[in-house]
Formats: sequence, C-alpha cells, structure tokens
Amino acid sequence: MYIEQIGEAGLIQRIKNKFPTNDRSIAIGIGDDAAIINPSSRKALLFSTDTIRENIHFSRKYCTFYDIGWKSVAVSISDIAAMGGLPKYLLLSIALPPKISVKEIDKLLDGVADISTKYGVSVVGGNLSGSKGGVTIDTTIIGEVSSGKALLRSGAKVGDLIYVTGVPGSSAIGLSMKTPSEDFMKSHLRPVPRVREGIILSENNLATAAIDISDGLLSDLGHICERSSVGARIYANLLPLPEVPHTIRKRLAKAPLFFALYGGEDYELLFTIKGKNRTKLETISKRERVKFTIIGEIVPSVKGIRLVGENRKETEIEPHGYDHFKSGRRRLC
Amino acid sequence: MYIEQIGEAGLIQRIKNKFPTNDRSIAIGIGDDAAIINPSSRKALLFSTDTIRENIHFSRKYCTFYDIGWKSVAVSISDIAAMGGLPKYLLLSIALPPKISVKEIDKLLDGVADISTKYGVSVVGGNLSGSKGGVTIDTTIIGEVSSGKALLRSGAKVGDLIYVTGVPGSSAIGLSMKTPSEDFMKSHLRPVPRVREGIILSENNLATAAIDISDGLLSDLGHICERSSVGARIYANLLPLPEVPHTIRKRLAKAPLFFALYGGEDYELLFTIKGKNRTKLETISKRERVKFTIIGEIVPSVKGIRLVGENRKETEIEPHGYDHFKSGRRRLC
Repeated sequence: MYIEQIGEAGLIQRIKNKFPTNDRSIAIGIGDDAAIINPSSRKALLFSTDTIRENIHFSRKYCTFYDIGWKSVAVSISDIAAMGGLPKYLLLSIALPPKISVKEIDKLLDGVADISTKYGVSVVGGNLSGSKGGVTIDTTIIGEVSSGKALLRSGAKVGDLIYVTGVPGSSAIGLSMKTPSEDFMKSHLRPVPRVREGIILSENNLATAAIDISDGLLSDLGHICERSSVGARIYANLLPLPEVPHTIRKRLAKAPLFFALYGGEDYELLFTIKGKNRTKLETISKRERVKFTIIGEIVPSVKGIRLVGENRKETEIEPHGYDHFKSGRRRLC
Repeated sequence: MYIEQIGEAGLIQRIKNKFPTNDRSIAIGIGDDAAIINPSSRKALLFSTDTIRENIHFSRKYCTFYDIGWKSVAVSISDIAAMGGLPKYLLLSIALPPKISVKEIDKLLDGVADISTKYGVSVVGGNLSGSKGGVTIDTTIIGEVSSGKALLRSGAKVGDLIYVTGVPGSSAIGLSMKTPSEDFMKSHLRPVPRVREGIILSENNLATAAIDISDGLLSDLGHICERSSVGARIYANLLPLPEVPHTIRKRLAKAPLFFALYGGEDYELLFTIKGKNRTKLETISKRERVKFTIIGEIVPSVKGIRLVGENRKETEIEPHGYDHFKSGRRRLC
C-alpha cells in the first residue's frame, strides 16, 4: 500500500500513534497548529535544525528507511550534545514522493522512534509534504542546558588542550566502501551522538569550546579556531585511529589517518580544556567510562592549523570540509 | 555571481549579517551548533514547523525570491497566531540548487527579514544544504503564550458561534488567475498572519477553539470539528466574500463563494466562541479595529458539516482540502 492511499490524515494518525509521550512538560503534542511546552524555568533552551536529503546526504542504494529515520534525528541530537545539553523535544518534517509504501514509512518512523526513545526525546510535532524529488527529512531539536553552562565554539584560548571523543574516521571509511554489511558502514548509517559526554563536559565546567564532528575533524576544528580567534596544532601520533582489518585496508584509497582528519559525519565531539584541568578530565573520563583522547593544543591564530606528522614534521593545513554549494564532493551514504 | 562561488561559509556570513538581533533573551544566535535562549519563565512555549517546496507549494514562474522568503516565514508565524501566541524565534532551513545567484538569495533573505521585523521575530539559526531539485525552505518558529491561554483546535462545544477573521478566498482567487500584478495574487504571495487577532482572542479568553485557514475554510473547520467531536453549520449569506471586479469575475472558473469555502492559504483565523460572549467579542472587535465575522454555529457531531445556501437549503458537505499524498490537486503560487 502506498502513502497516497492512506493520505495525509492517515499518515498523521500513524505518526501520532507511533510517538506517544509521557513527558509532563508537554501540554499539547502532535495534532494542533503548534506544540505547547512548559519548559523548566531554571534552564536555558537550545534550538537547532538539520536536514538530510536523498542523493545529497544519503542514497536509498545504501540506506534503509530505518537508517534514514535514525540518522535524521541523530544529526540533530548531536548538535545539542555539542552544546553540552540534554535533547528534549523534536519536530519532524518529512517530504515524500508519492510512490513510497506505508511499510517503508513505518520503517522510517521506527528509526526515528528508536533513537528518540534511546535519548529520551519526545516527538511533539512536525510537517508533511509531498516531494517531486527524493525523500527529505528536516529535524528541529529543542534541548535544555543549565544556565551559563553551554559549550560554545568560541571559548578556546592559547594553551588549551584539544580532545576528541571516540574514534573519528569510521563513518567516512564506511562511506568510502559503500558496503552496508560492514561495521564501518554502521558508524555512518547509525551514528551515536555523544550526549552523555557533552553533559559531563558542561556540568563539570571542563570544556572551553566544543563542536560535533559533522564536516570532518580538521574542518570542525577550523570552526572552533575561527570563532575563538586561535590556531591549533594536532599530533598525528596522538589521534585515535579506526582499527581497520587488513582485508578492508587494502580496499581503501587512503590511509586511516586521512579519514580521521578529513572524514565527516562521525558526530564525535571535538573540544578544548584548560591545561590545568587535564587531570580532572582524565579522572572523570575513567570514572564515567567515557573515551576522551588528547590530540593537540591551541596556539596563536597566526600559526594557523598545523599537523605534526609521525615524523615530527609540522605542516600547515587547509581545514577544508564539505561545502554544499561548491561543486565536486557530495556525501552519499 | 552564483552561490557556489561564495560557498557555504560565505552564505552563512551573509545570513548572519542580514539578521542582527537585539532581543536580550537570545544568549547565542546564528553561528554555533545550536541557539541558546533564556525564555520568559512565566510563559508556555509554542513550537511549529512548516515547509514550502518549489513546484509543490510555489513556482518561480509566479513567485519572486522575495515572495518565497516572505511566505516561508508567514506560514509558520500563522501557526503561532492560531494558538493565540506571540512569535519570537525562527530557525531557517534553506535547500538550494547550485545555480542560484547571490542576488536571488539576497532577495529571499530580504523577504524573510522584512516579515520577521514586522512581527518582532528573531532569526536565531538554521541550516543550509544543496538541493538536486528546487528551492525548499523549512521554517521552525518558537512562540510564547500565557500559561493556560493557548487556543486549541479541540475546545469547540455545541452552541458555540463560528467566526472568521478577514476575507477568506482571496489567496485562491489570486492563485487561480496566476497574474502576479493583481491584488488577489498579493494575498497569495504575501499573506499577513493574524497574530494580533489571535492574541486578542487568547488574552481575553474568548475563543473556545481556533485554527488558521491554510487548507481551506471548510477543511480547517473539519479539523476543529474532528478534534472537538462536534459538527458545524455555516451560512453562505454570512460569509465575507472577496470583492471581485467584473473584469476579474469573468475570468474565474468558480463563484467567489467557492473560493471562500474551499480556497486554501488565506492564513485567516477560524475560531469559535461561547454564545454568551458574542457582545464582548463584538465590542472588542470594534475597539481594536479587527474584523471578526460570524459565519455559523457548532452543532452535534452527528449533523456533520453543513452549508446553508442563500436559498436557505441545507447541504451536508465533505470538507475536503489539500492532501499532499493523494494524487491530483497541487498548489502552485
């Protein structure tokens, strides 16, 4: 059965049934002109919106509808994680060509529901529209953060240490192989936003600046440097690299280091802390069992962004990342 | 100059410059992973999202880029108006094909800026992406409403009177003519959301239910009836009809009454009040110089939705409106 048979009203009902909520701060959820929320009065609110578009951000050749649903929410939750906040409410805007089956939509909604449940996020509204192109999902997320605790891109200072969560690069390795069965492809299709890590950093007043790695480690480091008016030095030998089995290694056009530096869509957090907080961070990291790896330091802006190679040779690098409007590279999952 | 020449960073900078804000509740606006807002602690928050897509909701044959910008925000503001709220913050998500000129984008942003300024709305964030199809704008609006005062679709009771703001139908007349120079086309391209009217209704505890007319008067009345479990009787001779000059009248395929009942995208408010509040509403309407016209009454749900014709004959009507997923009708501005 295609969605044109159940129509817009049928689809809205289906979505409403899929996302029941018991969050008492939600006075009105799906089904009116707007959702009504009574937020916690002691918190600041975080708003962010993101889009994933067929044949630009993903291809149905490699992504299931479940993946599309999961990832559309993951990318938005990650923005809240990068601010050190707790994701709370989601608006889901779906554009669909008519020849999509109800079963496919159910899978997409399952992906949305599973990641939302995992992170305690309530779907409170959204929008449906037809599409003459492919499937597009726009997600807007609303999060909360303790007043004055949010992690910004702009607070890095010379002498701060640079850290990263997890192991960047896996997503880009998965993408470059285009083989959905591989573990690496899972990093690409079902990214796991670092909400807990972000909150640990914000609540303990640890990070001076933070960002999520959506464009690539160097590119997003470039954003921190630009907003903080600083430079950075990254050490290749400190970077945690994906463990790539030999069989896969020989199928890759580039070394794992390349993917770690330039690969996007990892949704790991990249952050800076004051040098004096290194022990505190490492203690918390051990206690909370989260992986924070030091990879470099903040330097004056005149130095630009530099990579110290395994041979100790220092090179200034151009932190180029993905640009939606410049021709050439396109992401496809 | 095309946008692919200035790139994503150049475009973000352009957007940032276009939307300065002096709203003190905004701690961080455009440029970080999320916006940070300190909302008024005594208010409930309203969230709504809407989309306008090229060749589904609009065509560049009839819409200027300024119109696209204006309308993308108007449709979202209207959702807040329908809840009796004050629109406050906007997230703007733009998907663009590469061959769009910087001049065209500037016009689009001018449209967004002008309606945002008119309504005191601050653009606090958004998203940019490429598009392989046409231009798509997703807007998410955040509004405020006094606690317990929001207007819902679900509160209409048998015996309530049905009112409408302004003169519905003009937008659909404009659309059916496809002649941008006409006044009617302006109603279609530059709708004016009824924020002031909505707030008058909510702050004076007048409306028992409300909705904005985006799908068409009867279709949206159907939504109120469904959510309130009631029926409705509308009187054709009470409906305010667009004044259509003879020269235009003869070019229309249907009578003005048809457009008033079935035409969508007027963004007028349709609402119900208790019978005993009629004098109060009319006094306020006169004092505040806003146009509220009584057009019918709420009846038991078994009666369905009925239209009393000018000949006093009563007909049950199917409140069909626009459906994004059923084949056939498409809106094009």
